[in-house]
Amino acid sequence: MEKLYETLLQLPIFQGITLYDFNDLIGKLKWHFEKFQPGDTIIKAGEKCDKVVCVLSGSTSFTTESSSNLYSITEFTDRPFIAEPYSLYGIDYSFQSTYTAVSDVTIGSFNKLSFLTIVNDFLICRLNIINMLCRRNQMLYNKLWVDNPKNDFQSKIIRFILLHIENPEGRKLLRVKLYDFANLINASHVNTSIALNQMEKDGLIRMGRMSISIPDAAILKQKFENKK
Amino acid sequence: MEKLYETLLQLPIFQGITLYDFNDLIGKLKWHFEKFQPGDTIIKAGEKCDKVVCVLSGSTSFTTESSSNLYSITEFTDRPFIAEPYSLYGIDYSFQSTYTAVSDVTIGSFNKLSFLTIVNDFLICRLNIINMLCRRNQMLYNKLWVDNPKNDFQSKIIRFILLHIENPEGRKLLRVKLYDFANLINASHVNTSIALNQMEKDGLIRMGRMSISIPDAAILKQKFENKK
Repeated sequence: MEKLYETLLQLPIFQGITLYDFNDLIGKLKWHFEKFQPGDTIIKAGEKCDKVVCVLSGSTSFTTESSSNLYSITEFTDRPFIAEPYSLYGIDYSFQSTYTAVSDVTIGSFNKLSFLTIVNDFLICRLNIINMLCRRNQMLYNKLWVDNPKNDFQSKIIRFILLHIENPEGRKLLRVKLYDFANLINASHVNTSIALNQMEKDGLIRMGRMSISIPDAAILKQKFENKK
Repeated sequence: MEKLYETLLQLPIFQGITLYDFNDLIGKLKWHFEKFQPGDTIIKAGEKCDKVVCVLSGSTSFTTESSSNLYSITEFTDRPFIAEPYSLYGIDYSFQSTYTAVSDVTIGSFNKLSFLTIVNDFLICRLNIINMLCRRNQMLYNKLWVDNPKNDFQSKIIRFILLHIENPEGRKLLRVKLYDFANLINASHVNTSIALNQMEKDGLIRMGRMSISIPDAAILKQKFENKK
């Protein structure tokens, strides 16, 4: 129980709750715990988001496909997190990404009614939720309003990757055909290929068959910011 | 008072409140009403967002500058709205845009403490706020994940404009130098100029000195979607 308390404290919704509130919360919410094995799908993109899914332990990946399936990005994380709390309400109540277990994974989930109990009965969680939603709004907005006049091929590639990732650090995998990628970043495929090869030589990425693997997006970000 | 009730019902935070709740709310909130004349600045971008500003009547415009001041977009509206409720919390508590009165304008505002009263005491407003924040999150996210392979110059111009506007309809004004604009949409300035001139002939935009005026963004959107 103490372990669960420690883990929940790491999730944005539960940050700062007291042990007293935690005990109250555990009693009021109908938790549903589940275990997954490496390779198991935890949530599929497009599934109705009618519950709050907290990944409590283990390594997971989540993959997002672009609307016309031209590319997808997979992010990897070892940390506890809540899968898309911003998909619970709004216009589109469905998960945007597919979540997969990379190691043994434990999740705890509860339904929308329990979410409302949190919103209604726990002042601190209520503010945490509003704060988290505002924060993500600002993060997405800032991405849209970036005006980076640097248009060299490497900057274009890095910008595209940074725009599409949720967590600014960690391992990422971009799946895309070279020809489509060149089109998406608005460059010729020869120039895109040259820039990607140079980035591979510099250790920033690893090229695969129709995929680009990024060992650490934070290094990419640093590189991009130094270029400005 | 009845007029205020009618107006508040149009704002996303207050949608669906009963007259009974409205009376309760009016008593509990410390409203501050102000009038502005055409040309007056209502809020300046960068000001601390420590209050909820509701534009209740009149025509207003709001202007957002890009981070390196390469371009700005001004949107015009005659409708009541709340200025950036998503700037109240999160990482950056400041207004992103400058709000200006175009006609005589009345605003009603209340401070963050009153906002918390709404969040805490009115269930329907609490859900409205979460819903509104989720909705905007999804809207911004979808903009980032659009993959439109159409890369003709007109599509590039329209996409740039649609990505940067808040309301999908109404009059907009983009201020940018032709050379910078060409760079931002990743085209030569000759091709950008040709495409803009054609769009002006088609009645989609009007060219000004370092500015592009869009009579109705909804028509632009339609044009873009038909192209896909």
